[in-house]
Amino acid sequence: MRVPFGEVQEVLRSVLLTRGCPEDLAEQVAREMATNSLEGVYSHGVNRFYWLIRNIDRGWVNVQGRPVLVERFAALERYDGQMGLGVPNALFCMDRAVELAREYGIGLVALRNTNHWMRAATYGLRACAQGLAAICFTNTFPNMPAWGGVDPRLGNNPLMLAFPGPEGPVVVDMAMSQFSYGALELAKLDGRQMPLPAGYDEQGELTTDPEQVLKTMRILPMGYWKGSALALLLDLFAAAFSAGNSTAMIGRKYGGDAAVSQVFIAIDYTRIVPPDRAGEIAQEILADLLASEPLEEGGRVVYPGQRRRAVREENLRLGIPVHERVWRKILSLGG
Amino acid sequence: MRVPFGEVQEVLRSVLLTRGCPEDLAEQVAREMATNSLEGVYSHGVNRFYWLIRNIDRGWVNVQGRPVLVERFAALERYDGQMGLGVPNALFCMDRAVELAREYGIGLVALRNTNHWMRAATYGLRACAQGLAAICFTNTFPNMPAWGGVDPRLGNNPLMLAFPGPEGPVVVDMAMSQFSYGALELAKLDGRQMPLPAGYDEQGELTTDPEQVLKTMRILPMGYWKGSALALLLDLFAAAFSAGNSTAMIGRKYGGDAAVSQVFIAIDYTRIVPPDRAGEIAQEILADLLASEPLEEGGRVVYPGQRRRAVREENLRLGIPVHERVWRKILSLGG
Repeated sequence: MRVPFGEVQEVLRSVLLTRGCPEDLAEQVAREMATNSLEGVYSHGVNRFYWLIRNIDRGWVNVQGRPVLVERFAALERYDGQMGLGVPNALFCMDRAVELAREYGIGLVALRNTNHWMRAATYGLRACAQGLAAICFTNTFPNMPAWGGVDPRLGNNPLMLAFPGPEGPVVVDMAMSQFSYGALELAKLDGRQMPLPAGYDEQGELTTDPEQVLKTMRILPMGYWKGSALALLLDLFAAAFSAGNSTAMIGRKYGGDAAVSQVFIAIDYTRIVPPDRAGEIAQEILADLLASEPLEEGGRVVYPGQRRRAVREENLRLGIPVHERVWRKILSLGG
Repeated sequence: MRVPFGEVQEVLRSVLLTRGCPEDLAEQVAREMATNSLEGVYSHGVNRFYWLIRNIDRGWVNVQGRPVLVERFAALERYDGQMGLGVPNALFCMDRAVELAREYGIGLVALRNTNHWMRAATYGLRACAQGLAAICFTNTFPNMPAWGGVDPRLGNNPLMLAFPGPEGPVVVDMAMSQFSYGALELAKLDGRQMPLPAGYDEQGELTTDPEQVLKTMRILPMGYWKGSALALLLDLFAAAFSAGNSTAMIGRKYGGDAAVSQVFIAIDYTRIVPPDRAGEIAQEILADLLASEPLEEGGRVVYPGQRRRAVREENLRLGIPVHERVWRKILSLGG
């Protein structure tokens, strides 16, 4: 079924208000989660909302929490997220990184004790809208074995890079597993297999079955040893810069996705490069990529972020595609 | 055969001097390239030296070139590398990033018109030795098809993250292809197949044969679409921040690895986190990883950078393993 964007946003907002969320935070979470579905990132939009409310109901999220400054030094700031909602906490920290970058050319904000930021690209798009490039990453609970290991010790810690391209932001938003858990859950809902082995089943064999991998949590790192190594470094950076929980500590304390650590870097590169020149360079890079000879007849190479606007327009016109079962569950939350 | 570290360094240095390198630059290049082999990164040490001299001899490298400041704003600086030697240019820019980070907490240096920096980890180790974390990346010439494309349009642009761990630096240094070209060349020299498909052969089939992939240059991105997307973003960042050549422009102007663009970010995170606390967090993260249940009996999980010191000590004691043919070619360069 399809539900109009405005209705989705309003339902999410009203459910959040029943959980004691302040108006402004409920507004931000509802807007961004509805936007994620609107822009085709179904894994981190409406489909994640029931999970978020469950985490609020079990006391993992302090819906009144807002970031508190712990330490600052020139272009660096460190906040404690007070176990608050992930989306408003992350929006706040990205905005602070942008302000620091306006002053120093580059700014870094580290945030501890926060919750799932949903879609990493949200924060890159926000920096790009102000003409800045951004690098953000988060850790999460242990949900991926290290390369050469069996038991989940690493998080599949998403990494996001965004650049304000000539025709809209170019954004890579990737989990360190070959597939995100959100993508596995969505495939399970749709009854689809993954296009490539996603992890190991209970017999220790590689499988494309999302349900099996969701059970074992033995998901494959992207690029094998590479995704494993990068996930480790992102955890070291996020936990050490924020003096917050590492993936291992989150696992020990919560056994789930809570009280995570995040880093937001904004870069105001037009302070050292004329904006027109940077725009020309980006234009040339994207044009060259799009001129790729396609592997499959009739196929074409696109850049990450390129289809965002078209999906957004289609879903604005037709309504957001929502699984009926998922929507009924959300309506039952009593908004 | 094995050659003592001091002898390797001296031979490389004396060859560079015959090409008109200033003493200090020859010293830096010889030291770092010999160190790469010493620390087991054979793909970017002695095995790359003949290639470097060939590039000097064909006029792609200005052995007298040193970075010239083009623009600066607070924690950002932009340099032109004057087509100079990649290693000294990159060492200079990493050091500047560290100095900026000392002042502002974080510093970013962008460098254009430079040459191959050899081993990305070199610059991370340098920042770590001063207690700072680092993120560096470079672009290169078109040597990897975009995901969904046939012809090489992207560089396999290496990305490096380094953190000064409690028992030495933790460093990830990865090309955006599943295997680096250096690794393919080394396997070819050794007569080995790659352990996983590395790219496409001339018939368009996936192959583990390094020679085939070196011929077609249709190397697989790590994590398929993920490595492809990340390579694109690193190129956008490197070329736009430095106002330098993009991968596409390098391809058009040189058809090889020359006049590349690089970015060096240093983070003095101990300005906002007590060093002891950061050290404890890192200790816990690494201890947890090392406690992984190994996939193979008798195996063990290690962190990236962990074996560096042991290899270094062994090669210092026994000499650096060098292919006789490679060593003879270097001796024939007339040092």
